[in-house]
Amino acid sequence: MKKKNKKVNAAILIIGNEILSGRTQDKNIVFISNWLNSKCGISVEEVRIIPDVEKTIVKNILLLSKKFKYVFTTGGIGPTHDDITAQSISKAFKVKYEYHSEAYQILEKYYGKKKFNDGRKKMAKMPKGSRLIYNPSSAAPGFMIKNILSLPGVPSILISMIENCKLYLVKGSKIYSRTINLYTVESNISKRLGQIQKKFYKSVDIGSYPFFRLGKIGVAVVTRSSSLAKLKIVNKELLILAKSKKIKILKL
Amino acid sequence: MKKKNKKVNAAILIIGNEILSGRTQDKNIVFISNWLNSKCGISVEEVRIIPDVEKTIVKNILLLSKKFKYVFTTGGIGPTHDDITAQSISKAFKVKYEYHSEAYQILEKYYGKKKFNDGRKKMAKMPKGSRLIYNPSSAAPGFMIKNILSLPGVPSILISMIENCKLYLVKGSKIYSRTINLYTVESNISKRLGQIQKKFYKSVDIGSYPFFRLGKIGVAVVTRSSSLAKLKIVNKELLILAKSKKIKILKL
Repeated sequence: MKKKNKKVNAAILIIGNEILSGRTQDKNIVFISNWLNSKCGISVEEVRIIPDVEKTIVKNILLLSKKFKYVFTTGGIGPTHDDITAQSISKAFKVKYEYHSEAYQILEKYYGKKKFNDGRKKMAKMPKGSRLIYNPSSAAPGFMIKNILSLPGVPSILISMIENCKLYLVKGSKIYSRTINLYTVESNISKRLGQIQKKFYKSVDIGSYPFFRLGKIGVAVVTRSSSLAKLKIVNKELLILAKSKKIKILKL
Repeated sequence: MKKKNKKVNAAILIIGNEILSGRTQDKNIVFISNWLNSKCGISVEEVRIIPDVEKTIVKNILLLSKKFKYVFTTGGIGPTHDDITAQSISKAFKVKYEYHSEAYQILEKYYGKKKFNDGRKKMAKMPKGSRLIYNPSSAAPGFMIKNILSLPGVPSILISMIENCKLYLVKGSKIYSRTINLYTVESNISKRLGQIQKKFYKSVDIGSYPFFRLGKIGVAVVTRSSSLAKLKIVNKELLILAKSKKIKILKL
């Protein structure tokens, strides 16, 4: 029996004025996307970056939650006034924003009773009914409520927590990807590339991206599919195209 | 007479499967945001990253076009089959997708008649009524139609074109920003920080961001305002806060 192709999608919602203002270079999108792709067979189909504004967070949570299987949020779960992700998600789903008893215990143990101040206690407050995403690097857990997974904005902490999300995710079919780097310009192959894409539009996604390497111009042709067989056929056609146009291939 | 505070906002729409899949690290958001902020007094209030899918582009263009003063798109204006930004924007605004005569001339001159093939000609096709955003590095122009400014996805080319967008933009009031780097943890200052933000919530935006530097933990407190006077008052309060808690300040 043929294995059924199961598509699972996700969105990423980056919450933080510092990303919008250009002060901070986001690194979480690339990391989460790659991780979801390679480890879970889940494709990120939309990303939004929004400010620390409750109304805006509520609206986007409700909208993305309906539209995608999973929504990953980053940022806004720390101890300061501009960390309003947890309370905004509570508002969106009309559930209480309250102490999660296990999160409270984890944090109290980590900081010690004396140093467990109000700011730190705030990090134990979550939407009622949340499940914890454990944090091996700085204790304060993320949480999952409905199909939302909330992670911190600091990349090193997020990275340390990501494997703990797996527990809550349904996997999709593995998405395979191949890249052929051609020493040519896009316009030289665009016609044939379009024809190949048209022929395989149902099963293989073909992207073409210019690159510059050691002073030479090239095009990276990236193919993605959940069918390894179809991917191989398309890549064979790409090699034929390169040969017919006498295009050199960059081996990496 | 007091100068009126004029707020001008913008959104960025990143069009490209390669960013969504995590293959490519976006660099355009930081660059465009910083440029708009510092050169034009324009604040980016939302960013979306979407795939190369016509229906999705059309929907997002219409929505963001209504919601923001300007919308900057990046990506999808090259010669290949996955470059569908110009035709999708034409569809969104129900205008013809056709050769822009000046763009056609520029590209024909750049490539020479013999090498001006179909792929390259495609880059002269735009929504009818577009105004050109000149490209000093690789000729193919971007375009502006209604309040949408379409730029390429390759960062080096985009950077070379950005000054040519100025012509089409109404400037907002300058947005000032100050950063104080404190050697402390967020929870140590979160209460007082919240109080200061509450007091100045109308005029100054305060953000707090943990940092790690040479093995030490700290918090960058970033303040932003269109009023330099208010910004100075808030920063004075921050220095008083630091002094009262005996927090060392990192001078950069």
